[in-house]
Amino acid sequence: MKWIQKQISLTARPRGFHLVTREIMQELPEIQAIRCGMLQIFIQHTSASLTLNENASPEVLDDFESHFNASVRENEPYYLHTLEGPDDMPAHIKASLLGPSLQLPIQSGRLALGTWQGIYLCEHRNHGGSRKLMLTAWGDTN
Amino acid sequence: MKWIQKQISLTARPRGFHLVTREIMQELPEIQAIRCGMLQIFIQHTSASLTLNENASPEVLDDFESHFNASVRENEPYYLHTLEGPDDMPAHIKASLLGPSLQLPIQSGRLALGTWQGIYLCEHRNHGGSRKLMLTAWGDTN
Amino acid sequence: MKWIQKQISLTARPRGFHLVTREIMQELPEIQAIRCGMLQIFIQHTSASLTLNENASPEVLDDFESHFNASVRENEPYYLHTLEGPDDMPAHIKASLLGPSLQLPIQSGRLALGTWQGIYLCEHRNHGGSRKLMLTAWGDTN
Repeated sequence: MKWIQKQISLTARPRGFHLVTREIMQELPEIQAIRCGMLQIFIQHTSASLTLNENASPEVLDDFESHFNASVRENEPYYLHTLEGPDDMPAHIKASLLGPSLQLPIQSGRLALGTWQGIYLCEHRNHGGSRKLMLTAWGDTN
Repeated sequence: MKWIQKQISLTARPRGFHLVTREIMQELPEIQAIRCGMLQIFIQHTSASLTLNENASPEVLDDFESHFNASVRENEPYYLHTLEGPDDMPAHIKASLLGPSLQLPIQSGRLALGTWQGIYLCEHRNHGGSRKLMLTAWGDTN
Repeated sequence: MKWIQKQISLTARPRGFHLVTREIMQELPEIQAIRCGMLQIFIQHTSASLTLNENASPEVLDDFESHFNASVRENEPYYLHTLEGPDDMPAHIKASLLGPSLQLPIQSGRLALGTWQGIYLCEHRNHGGSRKLMLTAWGDTN
């Protein structure tokens, strides 16, 4: 059994959905030694999240942002937690809807993703800054 | 430590929510040897997803489909990614809301699910066809 | 490789979102022996769920409840599964939106959470009662 664990910081990005597969995977040459295993990507924040979706069309990323802005609105009259700005509480809700982690199977030293699957950083704050990820991989090396 | 990993194809199903616990578990007799471990079920697609919910009433499955159709609508004026049909962009969003994987604890050779929990394939496309799953289980065999 | 697995019951709570990090972690002194690993928290129910979000302001918990009540409404005309009361079908949908499990990285015997991250029990029923969790941790002890 091999374990790999490292914290990385993603480049700061504007509010929206961003494809980050390459930026993450270039930090993980070690998974080539794993025959069968798992990679977990965990975001250590409560107003940004991770999801897996289409890696081809940039329009899909824009449509995700439009959908989440329409379905989790700013300035809802029932929000009590408004001290950190109108983008804050919606950011917390969006983060929980999409989730703080992804877990991806590793097969023969590579992620076993479908052809069209890419990793999205979902930045829900207007000025979220750089985001920290904890990357953990484990598996069989035989 | 034992690792099991296999790709399977689910029978094609119409748009909607479908209970697939039995179809998946019959592919995994090997988990009977795991005393304590995990099973991950990962869907290699971006317009279908997996969730865990009530395994008894078929009406729950229908109500899930109604809810997701009402809350992630087709033909929203802000969609840019419309080339693949009106069901495509909503399918991507629904897939990320529900997520591409489930991870289920294994105890004494069996899934440690609650009495009412069953695995749903969430087919968000009108004609999604057969869907590929990567099944990975690992655990202690002592 | 060390494996820890135990079922616990959370104290019954009213409908809403509740911070339960301390109640869960006091059941897991054993993870101090794990240098690098994972903790999975799995809820064995279909009308309550788990999420990770802000651990500081109680108002965030209230705003989550308000948002989910507004976006997954009771008594929708399209619900077929109404036998168990108006809070039942919304509870199933909310549970799948937030998900039945969390997986948290362990580093040097502690959860590698961000400063503001806490574990929420999301109780979607009016009278859900005590909820059972299966806790499973595994990792390298060297």
